[in-house]
Amino acid sequence: MAGSVGLTRVLEPAGVLPQAAWRLDASPEIGPDEVRIRVQRLNLDAASYRQLAGKHDGDGAAIRAEVLEIIGTRGKMHNPVTGSGGMLIGVVDEVGPESPLPVKPGDRVATLVSLTLTPLRITDGLASWDGLSEQVPAEGTAILFGRSIVGVLPDDLPAELALAVYDVCGAPALVDRVVRGYSHPTVAVLGGAGKSGSLALAAARLAGATTVGIVPHEREAATLRSSGLADQVEIADARDPIALSAAVTAALGKPATVTVVCVDVPGCEHGAILATAEGGTVIFFSMATSFSAAALGAEGLAADVTMLVGNGFVPGHAEFAVGLLRRVPALRALFEARIAAD
Amino acid sequence: MAGSVGLTRVLEPAGVLPQAAWRLDASPEIGPDEVRIRVQRLNLDAASYRQLAGKHDGDGAAIRAEVLEIIGTRGKMHNPVTGSGGMLIGVVDEVGPESPLPVKPGDRVATLVSLTLTPLRITDGLASWDGLSEQVPAEGTAILFGRSIVGVLPDDLPAELALAVYDVCGAPALVDRVVRGYSHPTVAVLGGAGKSGSLALAAARLAGATTVGIVPHEREAATLRSSGLADQVEIADARDPIALSAAVTAALGKPATVTVVCVDVPGCEHGAILATAEGGTVIFFSMATSFSAAALGAEGLAADVTMLVGNGFVPGHAEFAVGLLRRVPALRALFEARIAAD
Repeated sequence: MAGSVGLTRVLEPAGVLPQAAWRLDASPEIGPDEVRIRVQRLNLDAASYRQLAGKHDGDGAAIRAEVLEIIGTRGKMHNPVTGSGGMLIGVVDEVGPESPLPVKPGDRVATLVSLTLTPLRITDGLASWDGLSEQVPAEGTAILFGRSIVGVLPDDLPAELALAVYDVCGAPALVDRVVRGYSHPTVAVLGGAGKSGSLALAAARLAGATTVGIVPHEREAATLRSSGLADQVEIADARDPIALSAAVTAALGKPATVTVVCVDVPGCEHGAILATAEGGTVIFFSMATSFSAAALGAEGLAADVTMLVGNGFVPGHAEFAVGLLRRVPALRALFEARIAAD
Repeated sequence: MAGSVGLTRVLEPAGVLPQAAWRLDASPEIGPDEVRIRVQRLNLDAASYRQLAGKHDGDGAAIRAEVLEIIGTRGKMHNPVTGSGGMLIGVVDEVGPESPLPVKPGDRVATLVSLTLTPLRITDGLASWDGLSEQVPAEGTAILFGRSIVGVLPDDLPAELALAVYDVCGAPALVDRVVRGYSHPTVAVLGGAGKSGSLALAAARLAGATTVGIVPHEREAATLRSSGLADQVEIADARDPIALSAAVTAALGKPATVTVVCVDVPGCEHGAILATAEGGTVIFFSMATSFSAAALGAEGLAADVTMLVGNGFVPGHAEFAVGLLRRVPALRALFEARIAAD
């Protein structure tokens, strides 16, 4: 039982879970309920890569050296400044006899738990990576625990596309679940042209909602409008509560039943609360969300709204997100354009 | 409309809500939908007072000087280090002709919105305060906006008691609402012997739940056991996920349907998630909650739990909490003992 969340892999401090640990044991020998993956590529979290690139002024060799140092020191790709990780793809190498995960050796998979808790060992010095992109070709091994999440890569989608979808696949599944709890819902998605935002818009519409996508400038507005993924598109700074709530109200005629925050900048809590109807729900997917700003903000505004910490796990979330991509060609086109631009 | 959330009181930076503002206009002249309160006492947030007392090594005069400086500079008692405030009691002085608040001049009231967004002016130099307690006798004026929350102090409870209850009154109301959404619920309250924790336990039981209170040591366990407020009492460090989930499972026979976090220390997110059943809910009331630790933790544990940011406002929350105190004598006794010990 203890092994199922990876406790036996924690080296220091003792007694914490792998994500909270400073250092993991990344050795390739697996326990009875573990799975070993032969790593092919890391996909660094955007915030993590941005921090590293900024610190080293875009010097690819220096960025690569620091990524290697982090993994070597911590036994996982857990950026100590941003606290974030990313995910990886690879091929299943060995499956412990007691593993509950639905994979077999040879399956090409993506890990759907964060790299911040995945034991990782790099064996090629990241020699094939120039340090200039979040996509990191890599050789090495990673370990999955009994209680992990892994997605077999679909045959009909390129790996890059599946990975980009898996990276944010908790968002559409949770939006679907929340929106279906309301009758005649309206949904505002802050950052509607982004990856999690566009998936959230597609999920909200299929769940029966009238939707508005909020974007920061005309270029994204044009992209989102031409995709047809949102019923309305409005331009507003999500950090400006007054402008944001005015934009949502202008589009929907009233505050939104559900507001989904997919904008990865600090300071969007008050606007999201103010843009949401009494009895409505705010779902915070941005890692830049401040817990206290949300809690005190709602109290200060006397706002009776349910505020959800966006859980990256909902059962079936990966299949749900890939299904959306298959059903909504405009969504797939938007993802493909994003990947091509990266 | 703009005045209703206090925008006209924001001096800098422009365009943000009062809580996010660095500085407010605390002048005593009221706008048409504002209310002026003649201040009698401030009740500083525990985290704020602890920080100030620690910084000044318990020197009351220095603590008082800094509180005066904060209020003078910011136009509100908004501790810039902790980001927290507190609340106040006073007497309604003047009510603007367009105010929607249900108060009249002469009413003795407590403000139920945070001091972090309440324009405040002190006129007595806090001369009656020794700086050695969170309870601050004060003279001055405070302003309430149209969209504020204020509670008239009940006749049958001492002001100190009502204030202590109002300070955490969002917790029991939200616990009641969430617990009633489940059939045969079990509820674990981390920090069950504290103010918000004991109210949460009482609310959970009255909503039909079997309850366990988790406390950090034997002294609190004895207090909580003798109160009878919880069906079970267990001792565990809420920051230790394994110990905590074992304690909850030992008491309830399985993970909790609803876990309520009332422990004001960092690092309780993973334990709360691990102690909660699939499909259950974690309600985070602690301001020490880390948004990213909660979001990534649930994903890393593949935990299908709903995670709520504890909103300090639920309609009717003050009356609900005071009603609990009237219905449950052990709860009132516990609060009175806490106040006497402060």
